[in-house]
Amino acid sequence: MNRDQYYMELAVEMAQKTMGQTEPNPAVAAVVVKNNQIVGTGLHVKAGEPHAEVHALNMAGSHSEGAEIYVTLEPCSHHGRTPPCADAIAEAGIKRAVIASFDPNPKVAGKGTKRMREAGVEVVTDVCREEADAINRSFFHFISKKKPYVRLKSAMSLDGKIATSTGESQWITGEYARKDGHWYRHRSGAILVGINTVLTDDPMLTARLEEGGSHPVRIVLDNHLRMPNEAKLLHDDTSPVWIIVGSTVTDKQLHDFEVPPHVEILRQEKETVDIDTLLLTIAERNIASLLVEGGGTVADSFVRSRNVDEVITYIAPKLIGGRKALTPVSGTGIEHLHDAMTFAVVHQSNVGEDIKIVSRKEGE
Amino acid sequence: MNRDQYYMELAVEMAQKTMGQTEPNPAVAAVVVKNNQIVGTGLHVKAGEPHAEVHALNMAGSHSEGAEIYVTLEPCSHHGRTPPCADAIAEAGIKRAVIASFDPNPKVAGKGTKRMREAGVEVVTDVCREEADAINRSFFHFISKKKPYVRLKSAMSLDGKIATSTGESQWITGEYARKDGHWYRHRSGAILVGINTVLTDDPMLTARLEEGGSHPVRIVLDNHLRMPNEAKLLHDDTSPVWIIVGSTVTDKQLHDFEVPPHVEILRQEKETVDIDTLLLTIAERNIASLLVEGGGTVADSFVRSRNVDEVITYIAPKLIGGRKALTPVSGTGIEHLHDAMTFAVVHQSNVGEDIKIVSRKEGE
Repeated sequence: MNRDQYYMELAVEMAQKTMGQTEPNPAVAAVVVKNNQIVGTGLHVKAGEPHAEVHALNMAGSHSEGAEIYVTLEPCSHHGRTPPCADAIAEAGIKRAVIASFDPNPKVAGKGTKRMREAGVEVVTDVCREEADAINRSFFHFISKKKPYVRLKSAMSLDGKIATSTGESQWITGEYARKDGHWYRHRSGAILVGINTVLTDDPMLTARLEEGGSHPVRIVLDNHLRMPNEAKLLHDDTSPVWIIVGSTVTDKQLHDFEVPPHVEILRQEKETVDIDTLLLTIAERNIASLLVEGGGTVADSFVRSRNVDEVITYIAPKLIGGRKALTPVSGTGIEHLHDAMTFAVVHQSNVGEDIKIVSRKEGE
Repeated sequence: MNRDQYYMELAVEMAQKTMGQTEPNPAVAAVVVKNNQIVGTGLHVKAGEPHAEVHALNMAGSHSEGAEIYVTLEPCSHHGRTPPCADAIAEAGIKRAVIASFDPNPKVAGKGTKRMREAGVEVVTDVCREEADAINRSFFHFISKKKPYVRLKSAMSLDGKIATSTGESQWITGEYARKDGHWYRHRSGAILVGINTVLTDDPMLTARLEEGGSHPVRIVLDNHLRMPNEAKLLHDDTSPVWIIVGSTVTDKQLHDFEVPPHVEILRQEKETVDIDTLLLTIAERNIASLLVEGGGTVADSFVRSRNVDEVITYIAPKLIGGRKALTPVSGTGIEHLHDAMTFAVVHQSNVGEDIKIVSRKEGE
């Protein structure tokens, strides 16, 4: 048995289970071990609350003296809302720190390690690195690209239909796939749909998990401000709603539109919303991960601007047919196969009677 | 160890590997065992050639006296091109016969067993039955329904496209998926496409496996006899070509159409080919399994007439988009979700960079 892996695996598992709740912060967990006894555990609960190391050291109390700490992400070296964790670890008397993952920002990475070493703590790095990196894939993407990590989710039949030719779409996939889909809402900083989806389905876009969840910011692409006053989104303040409109929407229109406190209208510089610019805008607003749920025209804008990092596809074993039946990505599409966005399948499984495929852009 | 399973598993594995080469006969293998030594093995090589039992008994020679025989399908009791295998087994001095699977025809099933028992052979049944039944799924379907077992094969992107909006389709999936697809041609009695596929792609529709293979009969649905004289199919006699035309095609048209020896034109009673009738017709011509390869309109005719028994779907992890891009099943489609043809996923795997899903109609 590799002892370092043994304890780090626990920390990784703890951090994994908090994915989504720490947005836009990374998910992190820490385990304090003394003489092969676990004496402290902690994780980062929520942005604005203490870091994982602080909770773990608090729990360990005086046991920290001469103990080891396992942390899934390098402890911070900066003064934020709390003093640097690297200092806290040294001050608690920890003799050895084991680290899995590093912040992708070269200005940050290595600083916590350096600080602990200078204070006399032995530091071991890269234990379970791959597993720990995966936990914060979207956070790392966000930090390094200054754009949210974009997931495109769709549910279709075996012949690629998201509705019948008459528009029936509820439900293509079964209960388990739909519930799994709500986990992605829970894990995302924001969810995005086009105005047509609002006009057709009048959705809430909240994370409806039986046991509660984090609700994403709800973003609607609405070039011409066609959002109806009676839309459910405007009357439900579970989470913020941002309506993205184009440049042709006039000041008067904006002035006349009654905006409830949880709703904001963001006017863009172009007539039709530019996806690249939009992603920068919402990243500035601290959205690290974005779930694009449709419809097909919106999905197509993301595909053509090559802004899809991950594709979540649920497939129901059904055949629907119909030249006019809608598909997950419509719009104008790409013309040549060599321009298709290409992904690598990283996961496939059965979800109830349906199939789930997760594909990721190469290099993500 | 269950000794009967131990030997039957070998017979099952032998029979599995011959799937496709015995059409329209079932795939069958036999193993003769004496004092726990395998003394004879045989399989049915090809329709018209000796049955598996005959080869196995021939190999065993005088060792058959007092030996056991393991057969994946009940030995026949009728005089065909060869005498009944049940008699041959008894006459060879076999003392015990172990059987996995039975013919679904109640007039046939049990007769071979009865005949052997009457001749003093001990008979054990249902050993590895499920595995053995699966080998001849299409044969059993053919015998009991008098229609070929229909597989619908398609290759699409993650967003359900079989081509870009400009019609580029070569290739959506990778080399491994395409090669896997050729195995289905090898294993099918016939392959079927619509005339549009011929006009667009001018395909050969042969089983192109590097090491050779069985070529399916090539069937083209061509209501108005639009088949061009220069089509490759008409100039390649690797396997028969059947052109299915509707009732509006005149005698003169048929007379004027130059038909090479490997080609036949079958005129149907209706203006537009009726899939149910067509399947009965081709079953009468000893086609036990049919592979439907497209295009979308043809697939839709099979879906709406509910004549799809299995769906083979290859999915390339790509996004193509486009409202006008083609999907695997087009045509008019079904209107309501509760009318969608529903399947159960029985297999999923990675094939190169792509994903393969096999779904089967409930009860098949």
